[in-house]
Amino acid sequence: MYRIGIDLGGTNIAVGIVNERHEIVAHTSVPTLAHRAPRAVIRDMGDAVRAALDQAGLTAGDCASIGVGSPGTCDSERGVVVRAYNLGWHEVPVCAMLTERFGIPARLSNDANCAALAETVAGAAIGCRNMVLITLGTGVGGGIIIDGKIYAGMRSAGAELGHTLLVLDGESCTCGRRGCWEAYASATALIRQTGQAAMKHPESLLAATPAEDITGRTVFDAADRGDAVAQAVIDRYCQYVAAGLTDLVNALAPEMILLGGGISRQGERILGPIREYVATHCFGQRQGAIPVIAEAKLGNEAGIIGAAAL
Amino acid sequence: MYRIGIDLGGTNIAVGIVNERHEIVAHTSVPTLAHRAPRAVIRDMGDAVRAALDQAGLTAGDCASIGVGSPGTCDSERGVVVRAYNLGWHEVPVCAMLTERFGIPARLSNDANCAALAETVAGAAIGCRNMVLITLGTGVGGGIIIDGKIYAGMRSAGAELGHTLLVLDGESCTCGRRGCWEAYASATALIRQTGQAAMKHPESLLAATPAEDITGRTVFDAADRGDAVAQAVIDRYCQYVAAGLTDLVNALAPEMILLGGGISRQGERILGPIREYVATHCFGQRQGAIPVIAEAKLGNEAGIIGAAAL
Repeated sequence: MYRIGIDLGGTNIAVGIVNERHEIVAHTSVPTLAHRAPRAVIRDMGDAVRAALDQAGLTAGDCASIGVGSPGTCDSERGVVVRAYNLGWHEVPVCAMLTERFGIPARLSNDANCAALAETVAGAAIGCRNMVLITLGTGVGGGIIIDGKIYAGMRSAGAELGHTLLVLDGESCTCGRRGCWEAYASATALIRQTGQAAMKHPESLLAATPAEDITGRTVFDAADRGDAVAQAVIDRYCQYVAAGLTDLVNALAPEMILLGGGISRQGERILGPIREYVATHCFGQRQGAIPVIAEAKLGNEAGIIGAAAL
Repeated sequence: MYRIGIDLGGTNIAVGIVNERHEIVAHTSVPTLAHRAPRAVIRDMGDAVRAALDQAGLTAGDCASIGVGSPGTCDSERGVVVRAYNLGWHEVPVCAMLTERFGIPARLSNDANCAALAETVAGAAIGCRNMVLITLGTGVGGGIIIDGKIYAGMRSAGAELGHTLLVLDGESCTCGRRGCWEAYASATALIRQTGQAAMKHPESLLAATPAEDITGRTVFDAADRGDAVAQAVIDRYCQYVAAGLTDLVNALAPEMILLGGGISRQGERILGPIREYVATHCFGQRQGAIPVIAEAKLGNEAGIIGAAAL
């Protein structure tokens, strides 16, 4: 039996037909053209599903279910996207609309939850019962797997791990609170930290990049060329990431923590200092319940594979 | 069928025989005399069980299991108290020793986990599937219930919720880290905050209490008598507690959060401002997944009832 996975993003809708070994056997993609009426987006989504089925030589009847990974707050129980700012969606019953068209069960979860689930069925955390995935991107996203299943709590509103405190009343966060982990550990925060260091240290290589051209890679490139200011920014950033991971270790004692998102591609370069910080700051220090901390494996395919596995 | 619950504390061992309605039908207590050989403590524990059974007119054969709630880090899977500083215990196989004596299965969990479980079976959270109990005492303890069961993670080392950050590199914590929630929201922290306010404001009623006589109640008594400095300490303390609870809401979206421990007896006086802070700071603010926040109900009986329910 096959399953259909849909990765609904702010820019594109990616659809995959996934076999029982969690391999994508057919794949289509269409622009989301967000901020249209949800019905129009979901019609295009359905057309993309149809195209992927055709490509695989299958019908909906060959598939056990359709899963959707969506940004924003998703109520999995009701199958409703409650609020997704970058889609302009509010209370959209996406599951009911897909089931109506294809006649098979539809399931929904937040995209970070789907990515976490995908890693446990086909990625870096296969067989792991309790794990957490953290995405270091525009924001800091989180997916929690407990006992092999997505844990999202009441109204599926939990796992907003980027919105736990690093510094009470600290930097402003997009969520309206101050001092959230996301305000220190996201790629957006790293870009801000890079810009501040460039201003403060005109002698640094960082100052050679115009402020508007700074990306999450700028600081790593400068450090590669021996810039000490850049390396100090990276060191501090790794502490911010690791401090939040230490909280996760103390609160949830997962077997594994995976890092995804753009910054995670720096791999061992950030993972080394992060592991050291966690081992020296978690409860019980080196005798504590230190999880494996590694890079997520599935990248762009995680959304489809996880949605199909819902 | 009955169950035996043991609340192993640093001062006393309390034993109860618990019926199927989670009522304690017989109760005994003996001094722990901690820092003796664990074997001697567990022999006394066993004698107290025997006395409680006699009191109830039962034998071990009438009981389905023995449960132990212990301070410190407990490995529930192995039935071993891994580390309990206030008992002086290290790697004590308490379950094996109790089963050897009584011939029935023995189970073990951390005392805060037991208290959380007790509230779900017989206290303020009956029927609640996902809840968190926070104890505001000497430290800040945590028990997490997910899907009706204790969640403690790898090697049962999780739920150390007092050791998540409130302020990166802030106040020193007993765990060796800096800035933990416990260092701001425990009774110990409130006593420190009260002492600091007394020093800074000699005109305050707080300054009338010698530093060594300050308890967790001093500041509440002074506020009762109209002292504005005391009220400001309480207001700030409630923010510290509530900021940590907000993190729990964002991370776990529990249906309910219960507060236990000495400070929780202040009831609505602290619960009111705490609820207001959570509702205005959690993800989605008042549209967020705001749990019921209330006082735990079982008090001293929670340990026995929870241990019996393991």
